Amino acid sequence: MKAETICVGTEILLGNIVNTNAAYLASQYARYGIESYCQTVVGDNAERIKAAFEAALNRSDIIVFSGGLGPTQDDITKECVASYLGLSMHVDEPSMKKIEEHFKKRGREMAENNRRQAMIPDGATILKNDNGLAPGVLIETEKSGAKKVIILLPGPPEELKSVWEADAVSYLRNLSGKVIESVMVKVCGRAESEIAAILDDMIDSKGPVTVAPYAGTAEVDIRLTAAAENEKEAKKLIKPVVKEIKARLGDSVYTTHAGKSLEEAVVELLLANKLTVTTVESCTGGLLAGRIINVPGVSEIYKAGYITYSNKAKRKIAGVSRKTLDKYGAVSEQTVKEMAKGATNLYKADVAVAVSGNAGPDASEGKPVGLVYIAVNVAGKVSVKEFNFSGDRAKIRNLSVANALVMMRQCILEYYGRMTFGSSDK
Amino acid sequence: MKAETICVGTEILLGNIVNTNAAYLASQYARYGIESYCQTVVGDNAERIKAAFEAALNRSDIIVFSGGLGPTQDDITKECVASYLGLSMHVDEPSMKKIEEHFKKRGREMAENNRRQAMIPDGATILKNDNGLAPGVLIETEKSGAKKVIILLPGPPEELKSVWEADAVSYLRNLSGKVIESVMVKVCGRAESEIAAILDDMIDSKGPVTVAPYAGTAEVDIRLTAAAENEKEAKKLIKPVVKEIKARLGDSVYTTHAGKSLEEAVVELLLANKLTVTTVESCTGGLLAGRIINVPGVSEIYKAGYITYSNKAKRKIAGVSRKTLDKYGAVSEQTVKEMAKGATNLYKADVAVAVSGNAGPDASEGKPVGLVYIAVNVAGKVSVKEFNFSGDRAKIRNLSVANALVMMRQCILEYYGRMTFGSSDK
Repeated sequence: MKAETICVGTEILLGNIVNTNAAYLASQYARYGIESYCQTVVGDNAERIKAAFEAALNRSDIIVFSGGLGPTQDDITKECVASYLGLSMHVDEPSMKKIEEHFKKRGREMAENNRRQAMIPDGATILKNDNGLAPGVLIETEKSGAKKVIILLPGPPEELKSVWEADAVSYLRNLSGKVIESVMVKVCGRAESEIAAILDDMIDSKGPVTVAPYAGTAEVDIRLTAAAENEKEAKKLIKPVVKEIKARLGDSVYTTHAGKSLEEAVVELLLANKLTVTTVESCTGGLLAGRIINVPGVSEIYKAGYITYSNKAKRKIAGVSRKTLDKYGAVSEQTVKEMAKGATNLYKADVAVAVSGNAGPDASEGKPVGLVYIAVNVAGKVSVKEFNFSGDRAKIRNLSVANALVMMRQCILEYYGRMTFGSSDK
Repeated sequence: MKAETICVGTEILLGNIVNTNAAYLASQYARYGIESYCQTVVGDNAERIKAAFEAALNRSDIIVFSGGLGPTQDDITKECVASYLGLSMHVDEPSMKKIEEHFKKRGREMAENNRRQAMIPDGATILKNDNGLAPGVLIETEKSGAKKVIILLPGPPEELKSVWEADAVSYLRNLSGKVIESVMVKVCGRAESEIAAILDDMIDSKGPVTVAPYAGTAEVDIRLTAAAENEKEAKKLIKPVVKEIKARLGDSVYTTHAGKSLEEAVVELLLANKLTVTTVESCTGGLLAGRIINVPGVSEIYKAGYITYSNKAKRKIAGVSRKTLDKYGAVSEQTVKEMAKGATNLYKADVAVAVSGNAGPDASEGKPVGLVYIAVNVAGKVSVKEFNFSGDRAKIRNLSVANALVMMRQCILEYYGRMTFGSSDK
């Protein structure tokens, strides 16, 4: 089965935004055993959208559109596809109601334009959008006797992913006769090249299970994929490979659940050990706390945190001594250590994490861009690490946050003992 | 003149890498007054490369390929294009010499495969590559009496840019007589549909300036584009349209510089008015501070911030009264108001922003998911707004952060007077 993606949007065609949707969809096709034929980008132009659609219908089984479902005049994907297929459109009442409620809730008048988002081609299936107003649309049709599936997704990436994962995936799973199972082994605190060396033979193996590492920020995801006649068979093939990877990589494996984030794993570890945590951030300025607090149910273990961006704030709030700041500077092992010590006194917490570094763009007080210190205080035992990151300000801050999470996990495991997989890795 | 891009590479087709080359090339076409027709991605597959090439020859004047010029067996772009056009290939001696010297210098044996990088279709022009071994290739040909230009560029982005800028740009400048200028008018605090309604006639206008809005998070970017004989003429066409949009949307326009973010605009406003700011966050848990602190030079105005996630932290740190929390709950106008008041006392700041809400996934203390209160305290004058956001936890938190920035801007403008564009919008 062949799929292709048509991304509609002048902002992509003119290079104002990079086409991450095409990459996301392509990786999804691969995951569900569907061959990628090609990707096309066209502007908000009816004639070109129709030409791209016609070419796609002649060569692919599944055609996925992204973009052009919004409320403005230049959002015309749905109209072009319906008109090409000779389908009329009708108002989908539940979608219309959702849009009306959205505006009512905000006390704003709904523009007439927004009605267009609730128009659905006759006979189409609606794919729900939990992150926006424009629903996705799935149309089954025929071309020269062959079945064709057309999926229309909204353009904003978080809406596209939400619609895709909610409804499109289950549809495609049924369509493809083969079952492709995939398990994600998620690893933190090791470089991709280190993992590639350790798993060398498994990555090169021509066996039934494909082992492919993908580098993230202070994390590597290792995807294991196997095709079989049914789910049970595929899982049976993957199981021993997961076991072998865990044996080789040990505690660095933090989960085998694709949907679990590193911060979730850290929060679970804190919950399991009944530990509260606090954060004292300088260069990351709240991003570490922000990531921890994205985990639902975190209120049990996270009560308060501090952003001590100025030296004065480091002294007044976190209790770093003036002497330390004068002698070693804000970006130093000594300062970050005192921040992590001071933090536990501020608002009683079992674990405190402190981050101080130079995220750029310029060297400061003799400290180069990318130099970051992270300290973790677990029940009074403080560990400090120095990092030298490359990249722009945003990248250095994200690397700092990710490595702080990795360090938190390592320090808690060292202090409170190894995590057993059955218990906290739910 | 119409151009289109064909990116060749299985790694893009499978979603392993994001296609930044297409975005770069598109922005370059726009810059040199060349219309973008479409973008296509195909794998390393001769049949599909030729099909994409044929379709492109039928509709575009300039066809730019990226990728497939490397030394390996699956690098076949040059061969496919030459074979389609019926051109023989010959060894380009200077290119061959460069490759041989590269290997000699490194004391390595040149693989036979590397000879392929020096093969050039007969009659083609060589575009020099200062960042790699594969030269670019430019072929002029004809299709149904019309002139066609085919440009082959290497796939690695730094090589592609180098070849493009060195030789392709000067060629295209001569080819196109026209210049296309583009201005981005960035708007915050208004819905896309509202803007579309206000600018309805301008968006629909068939005049020389195209007006196209793109929705972001609590922001809308409006792109104005005009083609003219030279830069000055194009700018002259756009100027009155920018003026008209500013007149219609007023203070909601925060910049006309494409690269400026909302947080940068807010930080500039704080700097211009010599105001320090602090943040007290509950549901956003540090993300607002994190976004403000991503602006370089922010240390002048941001010193310290607080994350008061628990009710106790709201009392102890931000000084919210127990009575208020008991009577109205943490997610209430009253609580967020007290947070914003208390914050200025904590660590002296001129402006304080407080956020408290329910980001989900479940209703809590009778407050629905998506209900968020934001308070801004400017020199003692506190403004509070209630929001009802839709989406998942991450989306609600991001919307809260973006709207907090919008409110900060509005409150500072109201208190300290309107910003004049010439002064702070640099």
